[in-house]
Amino acid sequence: MEVTRKNFKEVLPLVRDSIEAADFLAIDTEFTGLMSGRDVSMFDSPPEYYATLLNGTADFLLIQFGLCTFYWDEKEKQYMNDAYNFYVFPRGRPGPDRLFMCQSSSLDFLASQDFDFNKLIREGISYMTEPTEAKLREELTEKQKKLGNEKDCIPIPDEHKVQIDNICKKVRHFIDFENEDEMEIDRCNAFIRRLLFQELGKRFHNEVFVESKMLENKNRVLKVSKIKCGNDRMNRDVQKKNEEWEQFEDAVGFSRVARMISQSGKLVIGHNMLLDVMHTLNHFFQPLPTDYNTFKEFTHCMFPRILDTKYMSSLPPMSDKVDSSVLTHLLATMSEAPFSVPKALCKPGRGYTLADDKQHEAGYDAYITGVCFLAMINHLVRMRGEQPARLPPLEAAIWKPFMNKLYLAKTAHQDSPYINLTGPDPTPTRDHVFHVTFPKEWKRSDISQLFSPFGQITVQFLNDTTAFIAFSRRDLARGVPRAFAGDRRVTIVPYVTYKIPKLVNKVYFIQWRMF
Amino acid sequence: MEVTRKNFKEVLPLVRDSIEAADFLAIDTEFTGLMSGRDVSMFDSPPEYYATLLNGTADFLLIQFGLCTFYWDEKEKQYMNDAYNFYVFPRGRPGPDRLFMCQSSSLDFLASQDFDFNKLIREGISYMTEPTEAKLREELTEKQKKLGNEKDCIPIPDEHKVQIDNICKKVRHFIDFENEDEMEIDRCNAFIRRLLFQELGKRFHNEVFVESKMLENKNRVLKVSKIKCGNDRMNRDVQKKNEEWEQFEDAVGFSRVARMISQSGKLVIGHNMLLDVMHTLNHFFQPLPTDYNTFKEFTHCMFPRILDTKYMSSLPPMSDKVDSSVLTHLLATMSEAPFSVPKALCKPGRGYTLADDKQHEAGYDAYITGVCFLAMINHLVRMRGEQPARLPPLEAAIWKPFMNKLYLAKTAHQDSPYINLTGPDPTPTRDHVFHVTFPKEWKRSDISQLFSPFGQITVQFLNDTTAFIAFSRRDLARGVPRAFAGDRRVTIVPYVTYKIPKLVNKVYFIQWRMF
Ligand SMILES: Nc1nc2c(ncn2[C@@H]2O[C@H](COP(=O)(O)OP(=O)(O)O)[C@@H](O)[C@H]2O)c(=O)[nH]1
Ligand SMILES: Nc1nc2c(ncn2[C@@H]2O[C@H](COP(=O)(O)OP(=O)(O)O)[C@@H](O)[C@H]2O)c(=O)[nH]1
Repeated sequence: MEVTRKNFKEVLPLVRDSIEAADFLAIDTEFTGLMSGRDVSMFDSPPEYYATLLNGTADFLLIQFGLCTFYWDEKEKQYMNDAYNFYVFPRGRPGPDRLFMCQSSSLDFLASQDFDFNKLIREGISYMTEPTEAKLREELTEKQKKLGNEKDCIPIPDEHKVQIDNICKKVRHFIDFENEDEMEIDRCNAFIRRLLFQELGKRFHNEVFVESKMLENKNRVLKVSKIKCGNDRMNRDVQKKNEEWEQFEDAVGFSRVARMISQSGKLVIGHNMLLDVMHTLNHFFQPLPTDYNTFKEFTHCMFPRILDTKYMSSLPPMSDKVDSSVLTHLLATMSEAPFSVPKALCKPGRGYTLADDKQHEAGYDAYITGVCFLAMINHLVRMRGEQPARLPPLEAAIWKPFMNKLYLAKTAHQDSPYINLTGPDPTPTRDHVFHVTFPKEWKRSDISQLFSPFGQITVQFLNDTTAFIAFSRRDLARGVPRAFAGDRRVTIVPYVTYKIPKLVNKVYFIQWRMF
Repeated sequence: MEVTRKNFKEVLPLVRDSIEAADFLAIDTEFTGLMSGRDVSMFDSPPEYYATLLNGTADFLLIQFGLCTFYWDEKEKQYMNDAYNFYVFPRGRPGPDRLFMCQSSSLDFLASQDFDFNKLIREGISYMTEPTEAKLREELTEKQKKLGNEKDCIPIPDEHKVQIDNICKKVRHFIDFENEDEMEIDRCNAFIRRLLFQELGKRFHNEVFVESKMLENKNRVLKVSKIKCGNDRMNRDVQKKNEEWEQFEDAVGFSRVARMISQSGKLVIGHNMLLDVMHTLNHFFQPLPTDYNTFKEFTHCMFPRILDTKYMSSLPPMSDKVDSSVLTHLLATMSEAPFSVPKALCKPGRGYTLADDKQHEAGYDAYITGVCFLAMINHLVRMRGEQPARLPPLEAAIWKPFMNKLYLAKTAHQDSPYINLTGPDPTPTRDHVFHVTFPKEWKRSDISQLFSPFGQITVQFLNDTTAFIAFSRRDLARGVPRAFAGDRRVTIVPYVTYKIPKLVNKVYFIQWRMF
């Protein structure tokens, strides 16, 4: 179900029910960009990985949130799904005016997947973090207390006195002699409108009510309405306050859903979900902490049970059969023996079925994630000689290897495959990695040749003359610096030594991202 | 005429003709945001104004460029117009992947004016600066010279050897035994595709040709095609090179138009055009210089004749009759005596007429700017007792007060109304302005009262306890610091003294922008 600010209020209770009824929740999100500045290095430790993402992604926006809830149908003995595809956009007023980053390639990609940017910007649901909500709530309460905020009363500059006076005379005439209930004042710039608000409010407080109004042609005018009786003014003031609170609730918007997910304490799954989790926390809960351990605690506190299907698919017995864990490839693999995808149907209009093919719609990707998840867990259950049914209880040993681990895509193929939210992370040694400087003319083959006596190497270029080089024969790696100590063409520094002095700030590209 | 990358190539020659035929060109642009960080202060000097805009706006994107060219119809003795509304978007590949800022309120505003963001991102015309163009041109030439770039040859990691070998076997079989000319290799992640490109290229160089291909469902696969004869490989290589150059020209895209405007040397007008000029230079020519005088020279060099209609309307004899110089208000004023708007018609489908009402479409706003410009100049001509006709020659004295001056909206109502591109700027004294610190509880009225013996003041709040205060009675202002030397509630520092030590970095808001 597509959810925008047009239907958000009606849909919210449905979402609540879906979450409540669910055994697990699958999520997927879309962003305005992936990476600004330095990319993650293949050899980053989990805290370095986090620090890099934090610096490089926090300014992008989360623009679509897919939620697919899976609940057990006891009669049919199968899982059913409800799916929601939320367009989210932080419009200003009464929320804060937001500055954010976009990456042209990311927007390009979303456009190629038919992402609807007009819907996003026109109809996206607003949101804010908890601290912002608290602050704005306080400010609005304050503002409503002292109605006519005197601090802002501006003396009319001499050059505008005539214009303002003329308009006041027209209003006087309108009140005294005209039959209409309303008049419009047009052709005033923002400053004059501001002055008029103030002057008309002062001079005709009990006689007229002044509002700013947008015309069909998008011009702003002031609408002046006659006050009929004593209550009229008061009613309008009360009405205005209520409207302001309603607008405030609209501005909190999608954050409610994110917090419902958190409060449910249910299992939340995603595919390669580190960025989804980071953006979700950062946009709907609190700005992300710079301290890595605080991040782990914060995440675990907000989402006590997280499972990353990309990580799950990278472990045995799945890993042998999964050549590529790209989500659609994974689904294809899950559709073949020894795996099999469950039905995962839905009530009409409430979710997806496999016949839908809405790749890269966040809700659909969340659905596919859930389907792959069920296929994998069913496979595990079958391998134990049991019959797949409803999910095993979340405390069961079967979950242990996957639970609360976030996949680290870029370092997974080295030896730092995950962040462990509830225990110590892998602490890969980097004894086999070196920072190497070489002549500009050198090609990859020159490097390979140089080190060929030491077995196969992995090269991550930093620029024309430097690279990180990892030796797969770790036993031989120790000897490398000594072996080339006399070689004036190359300088070899152990990874750890290299890392200490430099706060890594080089921008580099993993070459094969181009393909 | 709407111009996107779909029709850009066909339209380009028309644009060239329109510019050539024109007496003057009106432009208007739309951005993804207006201001990040500190806003301009009412008391900024022109160099400070420029510095603030430079810091606060350079990261936003110019997304629509409206060009309306006005040419003289000698038979009908009237101006006609051709108008173009360019959607511009810097897509990556072969252009650089761009990071840019957006401001949610600006996108909101554009959306309310029915701006089509889908068209922008899907069909926007690419562009780049001159230095980027030169660099990429060189890189592409280099790249095409050394075909198989050996630096990037990656040894196949052990864990992928089996998969790669299996696929190579399939390709061998396809070449030797299958009738089809093409085969597809799917379900490979980016890294495997990269390895296959390399391995298939190496092992089957003269037998197959490998391309990356996007399927209907947006999945990427590798397409392997058989090479039929010796020429086939060469032809394909030549064809690929040509395609790369074509794509490169597409990526230079709209910059061509901007440079045509510059090279024409024609009069370029705009309404409140400082930001339009800055963004135009920054996106299509060169990154803006930090030095203010270099900026003035650079601008004058690229656009030797610029006229800002907002500035023009702020001078006598227009200023008496123009209460608001907001563009639509100005048009309304120009439609009434003593002004009159000229016809400004167009050939069918080539431009606008006044009957169109496409406010905030950049092309239409450019058109309205041109119409108001003609109305104002005709008024000036009439006041000299002459009959309005074709524009007076640009060297005529009548242009002197307006030519090459860019309006400074925020300081115009103080005494620094413009940047003079071809001479010294106004150098307003700030002797009558003070930085004042006061108690948190104070309202504007308390401040006004404190200073009431010194005449009327203008207050620009910086925060709860500080403001810039300007005295309209400049003669009295001198005495202010002494008069309050003993007053412990306020601290008063002359503006100039305040400015020297602080590199201004406070973020503040002009309160009445809220209305
Ligand atoms: N060094 C190395 N990195 C890999 C390899 N395979 C995948 N990667 C990493 O995984 C990412 C590829 O992502 P994706 O295309 O989603 O493939 P997937 O990780 O296999 O699902 C890249 O960003 C790489 O960092 C590999 O065999 N070696
Ligand atoms: N201090 C002061 N600033 C003004 C006044 N009128 C307009 N402004 C400035 O002009 C801008 C208003 O822009 P706009 O609404 O386009 O009105 P316009 O300048 O009259 O066309 C604001 O950003 C103000 O900085 C005025 O009377 N006093």
